[in-house]
Amino acid sequence: MAQTKTYLDIVKECDNFPYPTGNQAIYNSYLKNYYAFKVAGYPQVLGHVPNYIVRAFTFPDGWIVNHESQELILTPALTDLDDENTAREKRTSLMEITLKLMSQCKARPEFTSLARKWRNETFPIHATSPPAAGTQRPILLLEIERSASALFGILTTGVQLTCYTQHPAATGEIKLWIARRSRQKQTYPGMLDNAAAGGLETGMSALEGVVRETVEEASLDERVVRMGVRSTGALSYFHVKSSPLSGRGDEGEVGFLQPEVEYIFELQLGEGIRPRPGDSEVEEFYLWNVEEVKEALLRGEFKLNSAIVVIDFFIRHGVITPENEGDYTEIVCRLHRRLG
Amino acid sequence: MAQTKTYLDIVKECDNFPYPTGNQAIYNSYLKNYYAFKVAGYPQVLGHVPNYIVRAFTFPDGWIVNHESQELILTPALTDLDDENTAREKRTSLMEITLKLMSQCKARPEFTSLARKWRNETFPIHATSPPAAGTQRPILLLEIERSASALFGILTTGVQLTCYTQHPAATGEIKLWIARRSRQKQTYPGMLDNAAAGGLETGMSALEGVVRETVEEASLDERVVRMGVRSTGALSYFHVKSSPLSGRGDEGEVGFLQPEVEYIFELQLGEGIRPRPGDSEVEEFYLWNVEEVKEALLRGEFKLNSAIVVIDFFIRHGVITPENEGDYTEIVCRLHRRLG
Repeated sequence: MAQTKTYLDIVKECDNFPYPTGNQAIYNSYLKNYYAFKVAGYPQVLGHVPNYIVRAFTFPDGWIVNHESQELILTPALTDLDDENTAREKRTSLMEITLKLMSQCKARPEFTSLARKWRNETFPIHATSPPAAGTQRPILLLEIERSASALFGILTTGVQLTCYTQHPAATGEIKLWIARRSRQKQTYPGMLDNAAAGGLETGMSALEGVVRETVEEASLDERVVRMGVRSTGALSYFHVKSSPLSGRGDEGEVGFLQPEVEYIFELQLGEGIRPRPGDSEVEEFYLWNVEEVKEALLRGEFKLNSAIVVIDFFIRHGVITPENEGDYTEIVCRLHRRLG
Repeated sequence: MAQTKTYLDIVKECDNFPYPTGNQAIYNSYLKNYYAFKVAGYPQVLGHVPNYIVRAFTFPDGWIVNHESQELILTPALTDLDDENTAREKRTSLMEITLKLMSQCKARPEFTSLARKWRNETFPIHATSPPAAGTQRPILLLEIERSASALFGILTTGVQLTCYTQHPAATGEIKLWIARRSRQKQTYPGMLDNAAAGGLETGMSALEGVVRETVEEASLDERVVRMGVRSTGALSYFHVKSSPLSGRGDEGEVGFLQPEVEYIFELQLGEGIRPRPGDSEVEEFYLWNVEEVKEALLRGEFKLNSAIVVIDFFIRHGVITPENEGDYTEIVCRLHRRLG
């Protein structure tokens, strides 16, 4: 049986990128392991690519690779000749060509696995408008194939839904619908999860995303979901995913950066309604009381970024309180990290 | 009529201390305006005292004022001769003597107003144990008179309760019980507020604090409160309160630092139960629908750190969503600032 963790252990495993406030020197030396990914004409750092990835690949024309400043800049910039749509299409196209070339490069296992994991779904990469443009509205700079998001360390967004039942009283007993992930799934097979979750593709709103995932993964009636689903907040964390080569002794490579925002929803279900596995994602659903969920959580049986959603649910519903949890404030703050 | 604000405007007014991630140079130069308040033997910075306050007062024996490192250190340290309780009592006593002396010093209006605002209630000042001690449990280092907390810039904790009604359906219409603060109150007279709120004195738990405030300020039956109250999270922010002399032209003094954690509770009330003004804090309670509360909020009619509690309530209850609020993630993160 796995060792029992604390709630803060779980949060720290998820939000495991160092904080600049902690020790600026450690933070800065850590960032030296990455190139900053930018788009020409925009000052924002949009992602971080490990040095060993940049060194292992010859970026095609259209990229500016500055080894001095450790910047990796995607062109073209928006010029007077282009409108925003044209510039976005050009950038998206150059990124796709680059990733296809990468997937044929045998210098790194991450490159060759790109072809295998290719999903033909894209994530959006946003920036606020350049300072000169005045108002700070978000701009869709380009799209990137979903399976390459970790390689470029971009900010991704997703949705998660907790389904639960509650006795009529405001503080009546709560039970949660917990999913067991399919043992055939590529990622986290057989682990516990929330009722529905997914990444937000380009152009999809959080609400539409959660409705779609819930209908697909939990076989709930779309009308039931739309009527009852409640938006309850967002969690944000900065995760470092170990490189496949890290810890193998000789190299000790830094991991891929995965800053993420998860929009959180909950759906209270009546007695007669039960989620059922829909697509191939889920093997089984359990209706567990708080104690059962808590035990499985602290044994580490949940997928990591689903575990923190359960912790947030416990905080909102008065299961984890300032009285029974010594790390209460630290947990709440680290579940809502401000991402540059 | 006051200008209409955005939700983010309100959050930024409350959490208005610069972020180190934003611009390290600005942050560091800003901190040059303060002495770090510490206790001998503990590395943690426990508060910040503006330079002009330190310069205007001669600290009595027992204080180490280091003008080079800009540190203001309260002795005694814990020695082999003392146990923790004795050291705490000595520190608390020295702090009290110091504040009494300050209150008789006419060099600054903040000193003379100490006597007028003295409440005979103390706030606790905690630290984690020194690294040598092994485990990181929180230690009560000393107590400080409540009205002096801003002067020393210590972290304070409080509780806030939102009372509301909701039609039986999970997503039924919500109405909020909003308090009008007494026009006789010293702070924020006549402004709108949540049903109950207060600072947490030394030794009081969040739950006991919210129960006491609710019974006192909203005249609700203690049994009703204990049965129905739900802990739903914590908000944390770093507020800079303007100095009385700031903006008067010649001095432009920096403000007092007020990092704060607010433990958040909600209480759903049935149709027949209504809060009534208890002590002299509240003039009247209104039962307003979401639209009415929102309008008053964005007109700036709420006390500032109560306004953000309403915003958090709106986020938890699906009133403010990723779809209808462009600054959603920024708002959520800044409501949960990680305070060193």
